[in-house]
Amino acid sequence: MKCLIIAAGKSSRLCRKGNTKPLIPLLGIPLIERVIRSAVQAGINDFYVVTGYDGDQVRHFLDGLARRCKIAITHVVNNDWEKDNGVSVLKAREYLDEPFLLLMADHLFDPAILRDLIAQPPGMGEITLAVDSNTTNPLVDMDDVTRVKCENGRLLEIGKALPGFNGFDTGIFLCTQALFGALERSVAERSDTSLTGGVRCLAAAGKVNVMDIGGRFWVDVDDPKALGKAERALLVQLRDKPTDGPVSRYLNRPLSIRISRYLTRLPLTPNQISLISFFGSLLAAVLFATGGYPALAAGGVLAQLASIIDGCDGEVARLKFQVSDYGGWFDAVLDRYADAFLLFGLTWHTFADGANMLALFVGFLAIIGSFVQSYTADKYDGLMRARFTSSRGLRIGRDIRVFLVFLGALLNQPFWALLVIATLMNGEAVRRLWVCRNHG
Amino acid sequence: MKCLIIAAGKSSRLCRKGNTKPLIPLLGIPLIERVIRSAVQAGINDFYVVTGYDGDQVRHFLDGLARRCKIAITHVVNNDWEKDNGVSVLKAREYLDEPFLLLMADHLFDPAILRDLIAQPPGMGEITLAVDSNTTNPLVDMDDVTRVKCENGRLLEIGKALPGFNGFDTGIFLCTQALFGALERSVAERSDTSLTGGVRCLAAAGKVNVMDIGGRFWVDVDDPKALGKAERALLVQLRDKPTDGPVSRYLNRPLSIRISRYLTRLPLTPNQISLISFFGSLLAAVLFATGGYPALAAGGVLAQLASIIDGCDGEVARLKFQVSDYGGWFDAVLDRYADAFLLFGLTWHTFADGANMLALFVGFLAIIGSFVQSYTADKYDGLMRARFTSSRGLRIGRDIRVFLVFLGALLNQPFWALLVIATLMNGEAVRRLWVCRNHG
Repeated sequence: MKCLIIAAGKSSRLCRKGNTKPLIPLLGIPLIERVIRSAVQAGINDFYVVTGYDGDQVRHFLDGLARRCKIAITHVVNNDWEKDNGVSVLKAREYLDEPFLLLMADHLFDPAILRDLIAQPPGMGEITLAVDSNTTNPLVDMDDVTRVKCENGRLLEIGKALPGFNGFDTGIFLCTQALFGALERSVAERSDTSLTGGVRCLAAAGKVNVMDIGGRFWVDVDDPKALGKAERALLVQLRDKPTDGPVSRYLNRPLSIRISRYLTRLPLTPNQISLISFFGSLLAAVLFATGGYPALAAGGVLAQLASIIDGCDGEVARLKFQVSDYGGWFDAVLDRYADAFLLFGLTWHTFADGANMLALFVGFLAIIGSFVQSYTADKYDGLMRARFTSSRGLRIGRDIRVFLVFLGALLNQPFWALLVIATLMNGEAVRRLWVCRNHG
Repeated sequence: MKCLIIAAGKSSRLCRKGNTKPLIPLLGIPLIERVIRSAVQAGINDFYVVTGYDGDQVRHFLDGLARRCKIAITHVVNNDWEKDNGVSVLKAREYLDEPFLLLMADHLFDPAILRDLIAQPPGMGEITLAVDSNTTNPLVDMDDVTRVKCENGRLLEIGKALPGFNGFDTGIFLCTQALFGALERSVAERSDTSLTGGVRCLAAAGKVNVMDIGGRFWVDVDDPKALGKAERALLVQLRDKPTDGPVSRYLNRPLSIRISRYLTRLPLTPNQISLISFFGSLLAAVLFATGGYPALAAGGVLAQLASIIDGCDGEVARLKFQVSDYGGWFDAVLDRYADAFLLFGLTWHTFADGANMLALFVGFLAIIGSFVQSYTADKYDGLMRARFTSSRGLRIGRDIRVFLVFLGALLNQPFWALLVIATLMNGEAVRRLWVCRNHG
């Protein structure tokens, strides 16, 4: 399916460092790239972008993006960009002969909305508008949003100052060629050159279906305040990772999200962030092995910090559309090395302190238990997901492990930290074998 | 699909400890149970078994089997079991009103033959016979086999002393009700009460299709010699496990298969064999830690022996139809513990010998490298299978690891063994990260 994106206008309310609006970065990614990559995630790869104000710069950026994303982006030039956005839509008429998606360059959204929309194609001569029926959505700017009144899946009225509205226009459409005729009628009959005018014409004929987005994320980035809201919304979405353990959920994740916010602005790949976290853990292990309480405590703090940063690689990957299977695996393998070095450093510290062989054995058990815990995690999680989809339970994992290392180092009790880790991790391994035996 | 099994006859040539033929154990499993479980693997769960000689004993066994396998087994009693086997087939007539499989209780086979047969149902009034066109199959007893002559997918002639034959009757049929009429005609017209007689009647009318088994395993267990051949054939099938490394392939597997042959006769589950191997490794680790060359060497031999027995759990599971996901996983987790304990024992030995911290560090690296090697194996194998289906290459895994431990202990060079393992395993981990990065 083809996708038309309107990126022609000039934003007087949103000017930063001389950037044109579609190129304003949000968490390291320009707005229009976010829109295109979200559509790519919904399976679209053939784009038609209407550019106008500062068009050369936008088109240059889009050419590079098309190469990087291996997609087709066709330029539609609109020199009448100072007129309303309906004119931009009409400029693309000759390129679009089948049902197509229509998006705005400054409207961010959850790709699932597009997937739902594509699954419900409109009838002949009709279009479908994605509507947000949550009229108290805090991401919506009530002074600027286009309001809609719908009934029985049809759009009745649309406008900015509409009384008795029951939803918002998200700027996401699935269109047929009927839209172009409606836009022309709107210009001829009412001198209204806006997209809303064309939609109003079709709605009057009962030809506009509405699809509720079911509370999914969307935001119109129209001013600096909306940009800040959008950023916060994207960051909050990172919180709810189902595999997060308790330390991740309540300590690491809130902090790592704040760090990721800054990291997105740097030219760092997620794999490079994984490496930074890994070398942090390595340095912490060396500090442990150095001996003495100050080095031990510093190593503990560094280990916990590295564990927090370990959450950033995945977060930045999600924020910057850089998620990959390899990245997840690379991070997991580095984490295993980091865990082992931390525990070995702690063991070395304890052993050098009193040269007792028990510390060596307990340290070994902590290392092997931690490894088996990770080794069994995928299989166990898979089985548990299949068995008890609703139950979450306490997940014993890396976050707890490193936190215990941190506490042990800070309280100058490395032996006890190793003993607790060894008991907890091996106990969990045995418990998993037992649970899977009885439920497999 | 229903499955009829003929188990009524008395075998004069195959008498062991007073057992009736269908109940004679082969690698711990009675012949008729092998036939039924092979059919279950091909998706069958509704069986009709014609019993005669010593019928009470066979039926009692089958009732237990039905409960254990959660399948339906209906008894068809044939008190005329001294007559030919066509009589047994006729006794089951009233139970079979749709196309059905027909098997012999003493003919073992690869379940894939049944799956192929089911995929090609015969036409109205026809039956299909699975035929082995390999006329030099060493598993076939040339003095006893029923020979066939086929042309263009049709059976022309069938008989024991057939000249100019081009295949063998495997005793595996997919039948329609036409078979019963043919058997009656054979009795009436030629006084031939054998199944072969009925098939011959149908073949004369051009109503018998043949399906070549494509070189797959089947064997008619008719005398002690055939029983031995069948046992060897089942054992040889265990050799070709694609994930076997070089030490497995050329040293461990040939020995473990010999051990498995005996283990199948004991009431040991595969998981119990995994535990025996695990405790062997644990004892070897304790011997390493004890100190002194004799204990070191004994530990090395025990470790290698445990590694060989570690192959038996899977082999016995396959031979006794006890393969399970859980079993494979349980074994893998125990192997991780066994590896770690062996390497820790060796490290302890080396360290106690000279109290040098380098040994401790190298031992730690060997443990972590081995773990990461296992941790990355599934992912890497999956990727490599997808990428280079044909290439096998050298697989660095547990077999090599334990063999190096064995060599190091035997040659009294535990430090060097640890160093080689640490280098090899961590090098392989880094190589895998690299390969997957470039091909993922």
